[in-house]
Amino acid sequence: MATQVHPPRGMRDFLPVDKRARERVLRVIRDAYEHHGFEEIETPVVEDAARLHAGLGGDNEKLAFAVMRRGLTVDDLRAAESPLELADLGLRFDLTVPLARFIATHRASLPPVFRAIQIAPVWRAERPQRGRYRQFMQCDIDIAGEPGIAAELELLAATGDALTRLGIPDAFIRINDRRILFAALAHAGVPAEQHDGALITVDKLDKIGAGGVTAELAERGVDGERLLATLEAIRALAAQPEARPEALEGFDASVLEPVRELLAAEVGIRLEFDPTLVRGMGYYTGPIFEIAHPELPFSIGGGGRYDGMIGRFLGQELPAVGISLGFERLVDLVELPAAAGAETVALLLDKAVPAADALAVKRALVAAGQTVRMQRRTKNVTGLLEQLAASGATHFAFVRPGDTAPTLDIKPIS
Amino acid sequence: MATQVHPPRGMRDFLPVDKRARERVLRVIRDAYEHHGFEEIETPVVEDAARLHAGLGGDNEKLAFAVMRRGLTVDDLRAAESPLELADLGLRFDLTVPLARFIATHRASLPPVFRAIQIAPVWRAERPQRGRYRQFMQCDIDIAGEPGIAAELELLAATGDALTRLGIPDAFIRINDRRILFAALAHAGVPAEQHDGALITVDKLDKIGAGGVTAELAERGVDGERLLATLEAIRALAAQPEARPEALEGFDASVLEPVRELLAAEVGIRLEFDPTLVRGMGYYTGPIFEIAHPELPFSIGGGGRYDGMIGRFLGQELPAVGISLGFERLVDLVELPAAAGAETVALLLDKAVPAADALAVKRALVAAGQTVRMQRRTKNVTGLLEQLAASGATHFAFVRPGDTAPTLDIKPIS
Repeated sequence: MATQVHPPRGMRDFLPVDKRARERVLRVIRDAYEHHGFEEIETPVVEDAARLHAGLGGDNEKLAFAVMRRGLTVDDLRAAESPLELADLGLRFDLTVPLARFIATHRASLPPVFRAIQIAPVWRAERPQRGRYRQFMQCDIDIAGEPGIAAELELLAATGDALTRLGIPDAFIRINDRRILFAALAHAGVPAEQHDGALITVDKLDKIGAGGVTAELAERGVDGERLLATLEAIRALAAQPEARPEALEGFDASVLEPVRELLAAEVGIRLEFDPTLVRGMGYYTGPIFEIAHPELPFSIGGGGRYDGMIGRFLGQELPAVGISLGFERLVDLVELPAAAGAETVALLLDKAVPAADALAVKRALVAAGQTVRMQRRTKNVTGLLEQLAASGATHFAFVRPGDTAPTLDIKPIS
Repeated sequence: MATQVHPPRGMRDFLPVDKRARERVLRVIRDAYEHHGFEEIETPVVEDAARLHAGLGGDNEKLAFAVMRRGLTVDDLRAAESPLELADLGLRFDLTVPLARFIATHRASLPPVFRAIQIAPVWRAERPQRGRYRQFMQCDIDIAGEPGIAAELELLAATGDALTRLGIPDAFIRINDRRILFAALAHAGVPAEQHDGALITVDKLDKIGAGGVTAELAERGVDGERLLATLEAIRALAAQPEARPEALEGFDASVLEPVRELLAAEVGIRLEFDPTLVRGMGYYTGPIFEIAHPELPFSIGGGGRYDGMIGRFLGQELPAVGISLGFERLVDLVELPAAAGAETVALLLDKAVPAADALAVKRALVAAGQTVRMQRRTKNVTGLLEQLAASGATHFAFVRPGDTAPTLDIKPIS
């Protein structure tokens, strides 16, 4: 026996049945996005290490797989003051940094408002665990060049349409706005230098509850009860604009306007305002989104507006907003109906049929539009047909010496 | 101005127009292969370094991008005796090593004869030059588990069908057999330990001519004229089986049988026997192929039988044969007709139309099956329409305040 042979740790192979299911789901998502006027682009799987580590990837930067410089010598190893000096490239950990780099590279060839689709794998060296992989697919749409919420509306509508086409109409989207969060922090008396830290704690609300959040904020010297009360008052205010909750005395409610406009529009998917929604990435500057499902304890996607980021590469400001579908979680939810008209004929070959004759039969059927699998006939035909049906064959025919395509008796596998 | 921002050296981005063209060509290839009963699989882009460097990748192993171990310290750099000790993974340089690993991992879940499609990128750290990239697509089909030339026939027919569907009917396939080459070497008196080296030289025939080959072989002490005369006599023998060329006195012509059987079959693409065809990879054990085109000085794909290779990972012999299309060269040859019925409507929005109303119009058209792009109206409508047509829009409509989908006047862009 050979020793067990596995794909690299935390990564997966896909057998034909899984690959087919994944490609069908991706096809539905891609179709939805294309109908909404988004256009697919592609970038290399690696980016220059300096760009990946420009501070735009948050904690994900630490999880990047580093690609070693070519032609290194032992002397180079001795002279290096850090392992990262030996790497010039890295596998992308998201599709947002590559998009920003892509737009900076190709700005002159792109329309002023550019709607991008990226459907591609990303890599993160996370500790492997159930449901978390080191290579996984992301499905991103982004609109660059549109500063107003027309962009958010288009993104939300395209996302809603994709989820509807996938047969997940119960999905909904939590929305918030980073500007609301910062206004709430200021209103609750949290000093500016504590804002980022306080948001990291608020982001844990789902996991550790209000008690946990206030305890953790207290350690930072932040009045967590006041902050959470402010956020809850904002939730109430959004629901009833005429109300003026006591906790919001002196609060400038105009910061709620963009979210109110989004909530008022019909985008084809339910939107739910959640002022405690944070989203991890520090680069968000406006509305933020998280795709949820009533039966799932985790999100199935998210995004937001990141107006400052592309400018870091481009050298001039370019507003942008994006939404990413968590494909690996989504694909398990989806059950698409079987593709119509997909007939696959298994040819069960007698041993005595010469290879060239078998090929002639196959080629004639393929030329007539069939999908054909060749298979040597075994004694246990029933077992063989079960096996073939499990792998997607729908019809079969015995091929005996002298048979040609017209003489075959093609029957459905029942 | 920002400094120029490029993708990593030797790699490419794809703008929407290029991405669309590439995906359409890939779709045609995938469809052809699926109709011939092949099934697509996917493996991670990286493999364990030890597997990539197991001696199965020939010269390509040296071109592998190495992925650094995570969590390395400066002490690790000081202690390492070679840079490769610091890498545990590598980007795949072909799809054959990953396929062999995949089959070893999943043998129990696969049918006895497995027909695989792999359409995926590979990476080689070659010196960047015109038409040669560090990330490029390969389209491979392989049949594992079938020892006879029935497998070669199916591969050749599927390849021929793919090339025909792509509108490249002039392509043809050069074939040879490694067993013919080794028999010719023995017959020409080349000592066994010189065989591999002599084949490397014969492989240069296209580039350096017969004179160059014999000169280079002479340096090795090999009689190149006799070797080339033997190969030419084999070419003549294959064309006229009843002939017994003098140069083949005592040569066992049964080694020509598999190639003769291939040449006699109708596979839907022209086959041409070329006894000087070598193919670089040392793992080939039987028939070898190279896809050629009369107007091109380079090959557009190739492959062969590699019966010993999967066993290296699996621990038991498993015969296999594969053909790889050189997608990057192919895609430039192909001009597919425009997709039928692909209407894209550009909505030219008056500035006064509220974003939510514009979205309602767009959503109604998408729900009716249209592909829709939103576009703010500019003063120069003619220029705008030209731009939109160039990026794929076929129709347009102005959207003014109060418009709904039914009130729009949608016209073709002429």
